[in-house]
Amino acid sequence: MPKVRITRRLHFSAAHRLASPDLSDEENRRVFGDCANPNWHGHNYELEVTVAGPVDSETGYVMDLKDLKDLVNGRVVDDLDHRNLNLDVPWLEGVVPTTENLAVRIWERLAAHIPEPATLERVVLWETPRHWVEYRGE
Amino acid sequence: MPKVRITRRLHFSAAHRLASPDLSDEENRRVFGDCANPNWHGHNYELEVTVAGPVDSETGYVMDLKDLKDLVNGRVVDDLDHRNLNLDVPWLEGVVPTTENLAVRIWERLAAHIPEPATLERVVLWETPRHWVEYRGE
Amino acid sequence: MPKVRITRRLHFSAAHRLASPDLSDEENRRVFGDCANPNWHGHNYELEVTVAGPVDSETGYVMDLKDLKDLVNGRVVDDLDHRNLNLDVPWLEGVVPTTENLAVRIWERLAAHIPEPATLERVVLWETPRHWVEYRGE
Amino acid sequence: MPKVRITRRLHFSAAHRLASPDLSDEENRRVFGDCANPNWHGHNYELEVTVAGPVDSETGYVMDLKDLKDLVNGRVVDDLDHRNLNLDVPWLEGVVPTTENLAVRIWERLAAHIPEPATLERVVLWETPRHWVEYRGE
Amino acid sequence: MPKVRITRRLHFSAAHRLASPDLSDEENRRVFGDCANPNWHGHNYELEVTVAGPVDSETGYVMDLKDLKDLVNGRVVDDLDHRNLNLDVPWLEGVVPTTENLAVRIWERLAAHIPEPATLERVVLWETPRHWVEYRGE
Amino acid sequence: MPKVRITRRLHFSAAHRLASPDLSDEENRRVFGDCANPNWHGHNYELEVTVAGPVDSETGYVMDLKDLKDLVNGRVVDDLDHRNLNLDVPWLEGVVPTTENLAVRIWERLAAHIPEPATLERVVLWETPRHWVEYRGE
Repeated sequence: MPKVRITRRLHFSAAHRLASPDLSDEENRRVFGDCANPNWHGHNYELEVTVAGPVDSETGYVMDLKDLKDLVNGRVVDDLDHRNLNLDVPWLEGVVPTTENLAVRIWERLAAHIPEPATLERVVLWETPRHWVEYRGE
Repeated sequence: MPKVRITRRLHFSAAHRLASPDLSDEENRRVFGDCANPNWHGHNYELEVTVAGPVDSETGYVMDLKDLKDLVNGRVVDDLDHRNLNLDVPWLEGVVPTTENLAVRIWERLAAHIPEPATLERVVLWETPRHWVEYRGE
Repeated sequence: MPKVRITRRLHFSAAHRLASPDLSDEENRRVFGDCANPNWHGHNYELEVTVAGPVDSETGYVMDLKDLKDLVNGRVVDDLDHRNLNLDVPWLEGVVPTTENLAVRIWERLAAHIPEPATLERVVLWETPRHWVEYRGE
Repeated sequence: MPKVRITRRLHFSAAHRLASPDLSDEENRRVFGDCANPNWHGHNYELEVTVAGPVDSETGYVMDLKDLKDLVNGRVVDDLDHRNLNLDVPWLEGVVPTTENLAVRIWERLAAHIPEPATLERVVLWETPRHWVEYRGE
Repeated sequence: MPKVRITRRLHFSAAHRLASPDLSDEENRRVFGDCANPNWHGHNYELEVTVAGPVDSETGYVMDLKDLKDLVNGRVVDDLDHRNLNLDVPWLEGVVPTTENLAVRIWERLAAHIPEPATLERVVLWETPRHWVEYRGE
Repeated sequence: MPKVRITRRLHFSAAHRLASPDLSDEENRRVFGDCANPNWHGHNYELEVTVAGPVDSETGYVMDLKDLKDLVNGRVVDDLDHRNLNLDVPWLEGVVPTTENLAVRIWERLAAHIPEPATLERVVLWETPRHWVEYRGE
């Protein structure tokens, strides 16, 4: 049975700032530059979720894309869209919301919820059209 | 002498919320929905500035694009990038930072500064890849 | 009061064929080429709807974008998405579904429904990323 | 000798419907939703074909891109563009034309035809700008 | 009869340098910066040609897009693609190949060749994804 | 510690021609087609550099993106932007500047300069929006 990867792209808009609670304001400004602005800034994020698995011989699907979209909206996007990533999201508490950390936490929100035999393969998160990160659960 | 329009696209990332100081929290939530989140949200904005004028017969330019870029960075983008549009920008004070209002204020920051005989023709501001506004000084 | 144009982009996927009922199969093939394939072909259409009007002094809006999205979905996109433009759409009956004709009919579905004082200014319809049409009600 | 991957993107527009011949109309509608519309719908597909191999020391090529384009047009795109994927394509007979199944069949049309020492590495097929699949022959 | 605008996008890749024959090397470097590099540089240009006219009641076309594509390829793109804009193009002789001047000359190559009753309305030329010019024959 | 890949996209515009010094003009024209034009042509290149590594527990970074941007600008982009790839770049001497060869040489310029424990994982170079290559140091 051929193994195929399917990807769905979704988006959300959010505010954040990069700052470590262990650092002073001055140190945060030195490490994170403008991203440490105490009054926040924000982004249009693009999120790509890739699921891999065998193609079902009857439906021709690895996984119903509508189910994948509903899953990612329900467990990730609805919590992040038009929110403050430092203040409004219980599952991001205590995390500096860099793109790297966001991708890892999004993976953790989704990996156990992909219906077998498919599996989560990759989470890609774009912070701007010129910068993105990828996490594969490694 | 042919009249040509030239456009330069720039970008900035910022936080904001939509809320009128004349409305209660509940009314703001009713009018602006999720955009009224008191903890802010944010966007990657794309800004397109169009200048129209005759083509200089020696240089073949309507206006030096590097000068246009420097002008828009100096009077607009540097003030907005990685900032909070409600709190950090003196020339946006008292304005609900909708895309419409931002485009009008950006026009006002630029129109008098385009070197003659060229003139500012159009400001286009994208809040997301599926929503933008255009202002022509009318 | 400044006059601003706001645009919302939406999409739909549909099947169609280009063929005039007044022409023979052979003539349709000659006029419309591969687009006349009797077994249909299809596209991902991108639809941009532009509304112009004064900026409301309280909300900072020309028109609530969510209302615009709901209007275009309800009167246009829901009727076209995952449909056959020659067979499934009452308001396209008797029309050769070229991009030109689609844009004119979409305009007619929307123009009377934009809330005053805003007005419909422009409908842009992309049939592919390299081909689009624009109609302004003229 | 360095091993490099080269990719060429091509496009085609086609009609299809998702429906299993083993299911009733009602069951197909339940499994495939709007995609089961008996009057078809369609898409602008984007196809990316990746070939991997050593860089030829004289030409600096893994494979002549024009040859790759001609191969994919001749064996895949010419058969699919402006066609009905359920009715018009002999090598898709009996296949529910999901993006997954299309990618696998496109791989099978190409893999044996890449000139040695290069090999086919990946077929990516976009059904919309927000949904794509990838097949690597596994 | 409704008046519709149709646009076709095409592309070409070319080398050029910006330098006036009336200026010294040093002056050209001062006016045009890196664009004056005597060893040339180059771009992927995107060209959008817009034609306006009434919709033909039988075909539903303003103009056959294939005819438009063939016209622009034959009179413009074939002369520019994989060429040096300063050295290889008779109809650009004596012109500093700025994006402004290119757009005006491309207009002049096309305006008289659009079949009536349609007319050429606009030429847009992108030199990079962040910079473009527009000429309307004014 | 999770391993994440981060990517930064940068761009440059350059002229080149494809021609082997070991071949005659006629042979070069036969092998490389229009790309062998002795008067050069050019492209807007997009360069994507991917770095992989553990996420630093304090900063939440794999690597500071500004450092990555400065590194790639300093060792690659500044040497290539608005230059002739056959004539102006010492580290491309003797190389036919195909996209394949450029990607390999760009890798060699960067691999030893990524700060530990991160490593260079992938260089992707787009010559046009429909053609790109990928090199992973293999």
